[in-house]
Amino acid sequence: MRLTRSTTHTVWDRAIPPAARVVPGDEVTVEVANSSGGQLAKDSTVADVATLDFSNVNPVTGPLAVDGVEPGDVLVVDILDIDVDSWGWTANIPGFGLLADDFPDAHLRISSISAGSVELLPGLVLPSVPMIGTIGVAPPAAEPASVVVPTRFGGNMDIRHVTAGARLLLPVGVPDALLSLGDTHAAQGDGEICGTGIETSSVVRFRVDVIRGRALAFPIVETDPRTARAGRAIAVTAIGPDLMQATRDAARGLVDEIVLRTGLAPLDAYLFASVAADLKISEVVDAPNWVVSMHVERDLLT
Amino acid sequence: MRLTRSTTHTVWDRAIPPAARVVPGDEVTVEVANSSGGQLAKDSTVADVATLDFSNVNPVTGPLAVDGVEPGDVLVVDILDIDVDSWGWTANIPGFGLLADDFPDAHLRISSISAGSVELLPGLVLPSVPMIGTIGVAPPAAEPASVVVPTRFGGNMDIRHVTAGARLLLPVGVPDALLSLGDTHAAQGDGEICGTGIETSSVVRFRVDVIRGRALAFPIVETDPRTARAGRAIAVTAIGPDLMQATRDAARGLVDEIVLRTGLAPLDAYLFASVAADLKISEVVDAPNWVVSMHVERDLLT
Repeated sequence: MRLTRSTTHTVWDRAIPPAARVVPGDEVTVEVANSSGGQLAKDSTVADVATLDFSNVNPVTGPLAVDGVEPGDVLVVDILDIDVDSWGWTANIPGFGLLADDFPDAHLRISSISAGSVELLPGLVLPSVPMIGTIGVAPPAAEPASVVVPTRFGGNMDIRHVTAGARLLLPVGVPDALLSLGDTHAAQGDGEICGTGIETSSVVRFRVDVIRGRALAFPIVETDPRTARAGRAIAVTAIGPDLMQATRDAARGLVDEIVLRTGLAPLDAYLFASVAADLKISEVVDAPNWVVSMHVERDLLT
Repeated sequence: MRLTRSTTHTVWDRAIPPAARVVPGDEVTVEVANSSGGQLAKDSTVADVATLDFSNVNPVTGPLAVDGVEPGDVLVVDILDIDVDSWGWTANIPGFGLLADDFPDAHLRISSISAGSVELLPGLVLPSVPMIGTIGVAPPAAEPASVVVPTRFGGNMDIRHVTAGARLLLPVGVPDALLSLGDTHAAQGDGEICGTGIETSSVVRFRVDVIRGRALAFPIVETDPRTARAGRAIAVTAIGPDLMQATRDAARGLVDEIVLRTGLAPLDAYLFASVAADLKISEVVDAPNWVVSMHVERDLLT
């Protein structure tokens, strides 16, 4: 079974008719558009970011009906392979992203992608571990919902561990599950702070299965060891009573540290952190102050 | 230079006279009490948790004056070795911890610690990577402050990456820095969700140095590769508009998953998650919903 990019949608809506139907145990191949939905190309410039039509971003391919899977079951997705394109885009989109107030200007970088690595800027190469930014099932609500906002039924979760070799468990909201996916990234850090990863089209191969009658509050991922980061890291901390503020401060601190160590322009450092650095909650118990840290491998900063 | 446990304090206070004085470049050995400050012993029971005197917890050894280091400099601490005791304690302290409302009852587990591993419960063994929970310099404020609450001058940061082989950069608040440390853990996860790690005494060896005239908003850690987690992990997610609520929900979900997979009692699963599982911010840009994930290595759950 193969789904092409001719069947995409840009809202979650249980009323969208299935593009195809499979049974638990089947293997599926799905063509995924990059998250601009064809609005950005390899030769795009920053001017094209300013005119992005948000009603057409983040198209997902599907929905795929999985026969007999019911609300109250869990849909199991074993990701077998994510074959990404040879280029990707990373942008700062004004008003979007964790540090939108710090970075009001549009910015765009086109990367070249090869086996196992991404060149974000000339000479700045990072590991590529392709992942699926948006994967989820139709929510039970009657009204269509934005495909940009993740919910307990998955969707635009942007979890960098949803890679080949990973297993994803999704709560099921409607009969036959109605799975859709899109928004693949060649690389991304935990947090995706600027709001984009290395956005790229791809062909995804996976197997679907079912666990009957398991109540699941939120999705679960079994990760692949290739998503581990093994080297010495620079971890910039932030400490304070508001977790979101500490998260912003840690991200700001890491952007500054990248600028200091590499001489990158701040906007490039922000994009770099989004695709390569990881937000962690170091402690969330020593009231009233919490500690958030953002880590990037030191070898990437030389 | 060696500091013994005879010079500990339980508030941050710039007026506490230095226990010793060194110059940048010196190596120092510091004896650290476990965070109960002698109130819990190897044969303690859960009844002792209920009577813990909080005014005497988390003693830090010091302060160590580092000659000529000034506010506006950065104190550099290269951690050379953390030699921990053969036992440690992990507790749920009523009213303390991320899930205090879910777990109102006191609970205590005494671990045995050997080279490279910790046995939290009979047969439940996890890797030991000893770390310093509390390390910081005297804040510039005139009034004494709780040693339990971390600030931008460090203190009870509970960052699991502050291990042997790591380098810690601390903003300096007062002349001669006045460094103190305590609260060592044989193991801890990112987040330390129940509020305690494998709490143990230790002897810490480190070298101090200085970077002149660098404004640092918050501490920075250069991590040691031994703190990386390399295996396949179970990552339980939570998705919603409040980062703290999502953090709690991810922790709850992981505790449930540990119970499901191992048959542990929920309180033991909570302690286990605190010492072995890691909180990550997966995305914090797809407004209005954020994704927090809590990861534990799958091999620990068998």
